[in-house]
Amino acid sequence: MAEAAAKQRSPATPRPVRCIVKLGGAAITNKGELESIDERSLRSACAQLRQAMSGSGDAAPGKVMGMDWSRRPGDPADPAVDTDGFRGMAGLGIDTNFIVVHGAGSFGHFQASRSGVHKGGLHTPLVKAGFVATRISVTSLNQEVVRALAREGIPSIGLSPFACGWSTQQRKLVSANASQIIQSLHAGFVPVLHGDGVLDELLACTILSGDVIIRHLAQLLSPKYVVFLTDVQGVYDRPPTDSNAVLLREIEVDDNGGWSVVKPVLQGNKRGVETSVAAHDTTGGMETKILEAAAIARLGVDVYITKVGTDHSLRALKGDVDTSTDDWLGTVIRSAK
Amino acid sequence: MAEAAAKQRSPATPRPVRCIVKLGGAAITNKGELESIDERSLRSACAQLRQAMSGSGDAAPGKVMGMDWSRRPGDPADPAVDTDGFRGMAGLGIDTNFIVVHGAGSFGHFQASRSGVHKGGLHTPLVKAGFVATRISVTSLNQEVVRALAREGIPSIGLSPFACGWSTQQRKLVSANASQIIQSLHAGFVPVLHGDGVLDELLACTILSGDVIIRHLAQLLSPKYVVFLTDVQGVYDRPPTDSNAVLLREIEVDDNGGWSVVKPVLQGNKRGVETSVAAHDTTGGMETKILEAAAIARLGVDVYITKVGTDHSLRALKGDVDTSTDDWLGTVIRSAK
Repeated sequence: MAEAAAKQRSPATPRPVRCIVKLGGAAITNKGELESIDERSLRSACAQLRQAMSGSGDAAPGKVMGMDWSRRPGDPADPAVDTDGFRGMAGLGIDTNFIVVHGAGSFGHFQASRSGVHKGGLHTPLVKAGFVATRISVTSLNQEVVRALAREGIPSIGLSPFACGWSTQQRKLVSANASQIIQSLHAGFVPVLHGDGVLDELLACTILSGDVIIRHLAQLLSPKYVVFLTDVQGVYDRPPTDSNAVLLREIEVDDNGGWSVVKPVLQGNKRGVETSVAAHDTTGGMETKILEAAAIARLGVDVYITKVGTDHSLRALKGDVDTSTDDWLGTVIRSAK
Repeated sequence: MAEAAAKQRSPATPRPVRCIVKLGGAAITNKGELESIDERSLRSACAQLRQAMSGSGDAAPGKVMGMDWSRRPGDPADPAVDTDGFRGMAGLGIDTNFIVVHGAGSFGHFQASRSGVHKGGLHTPLVKAGFVATRISVTSLNQEVVRALAREGIPSIGLSPFACGWSTQQRKLVSANASQIIQSLHAGFVPVLHGDGVLDELLACTILSGDVIIRHLAQLLSPKYVVFLTDVQGVYDRPPTDSNAVLLREIEVDDNGGWSVVKPVLQGNKRGVETSVAAHDTTGGMETKILEAAAIARLGVDVYITKVGTDHSLRALKGDVDTSTDDWLGTVIRSAK
């Protein structure tokens, strides 16, 4: 993978990416309800992203110049566009060097599971229809995330992995040209990718998860840090619904792929020894998330996993996480080196 | 351009494309109203496309198995998905070897014109914001066209030229990799592209029109025929609102780019001599359309321009146009050879 990543690097040196942000499906959608966005969480994540980009610390944010000039359902009139306001600006005044990747949550899963898209087999009408239906659903969510970011004055650009030509071989990424992403960053846009249905060389099609996309982009673009925004505080040693669940605050990853909990010191767990305590969360996807996060951390990129819409998520997005104190709630995964 | 097209041809021989269809912005949207779809025309175009794909002539169409399993505004319940029905199908029973390209109509134009995106200059906040706003608007329409096709049981896949990595140099296409389009066709999907905001090597950004996209794809993929669905019967010798306007039924294009009206025989016009009568339509875009259509016809590909939602458009989509009789209303543009 690392080799493939190197091969696909653009000849033009990309400006260094500051942060890749995962907006977890569970964080920005209401999982129990089909295709329902958690508007409050999504809005909060976008507003915090803007704050992190503006770098103004705790200063009062300036006037937000929205970039979504489209009608919204129920809008009585055409959108107001402050062209004079934009003309008066010397620049956007924000560091847009971020990439956003979002999950599917209550978008796409219904369509994918009804048809078995992840198992492949496009020759059957059910899988073909399910592939079409799944892409319609996940791209609908992408459109809403792009619009929510644009409303916060973030120059967001939707980029579907399928349209970018990304494909897999037995679910492993084999073609993932990032030139459009790099060019978008160069031009000052914030690329917004998403978990997507893609073509698979062996299975004909499958689902490419947002977490795998992030790992690939981290390998390719070496961001300063990666943030996963979820619907729980971070990674726990057992399901967070269990009253004895302990938040794992710091996890170290070694070169061999082993990982150990550094903080808090768990009973029977020693630094450098892989913990035998399984990590869980309510989304059922935390195991995969840890594996992907560990793969990113092994590259020397710090990974912050925390709850959307909190002070902790704002600090994570700013890259301002200090694990020596106890006032930041979340999980840091980093390389042991 | 022809050379560039040849260079970009995929090594795998694509199966021959039957037809590239342009759904004109004026045909599928209400031009006077911001971001308003002409639902009736769009639905009719999709239903006729399905008929053309099913090749069943005038036979009663079979049950349509919809592929849009997403909620629609106001839907009370989750969408019904007939998985058993799909499982019982041996295949889709339609020839999906079509490409759809649509214009913007009342989507995108407002945002682009307020900001001057087509003139470039992404360094200014107004143009950057306008680019974001334009893409949000045109991709919204793309999403609706993809869904309308999917509801007719057509396995449609949205492909934004920007996301495909298409870019221009001083508004001329210089990078237009069609591998995703070809792979989508191979997999049995109907690619749905659209006029889009793209990066420009000289101007930083511009607008790439659907007509230019079609010309490029026609060069690359040699379809049997190309259909332009518009809101008027075809190309006239003067604005069609003029009661003396004459529908130009057949135009021949020679190798030098000249074109002449073959039918009807116009006063003072001779075959082989370029007509001095300017061609018009209400959309103001017919001049460009004729030039693009003429470029396609010079490749030896017949171009049919006709009104959406009529018997004539159905015949055009089926490739069943006979200019020796008078019962087909529209304009055929073909090579003089």
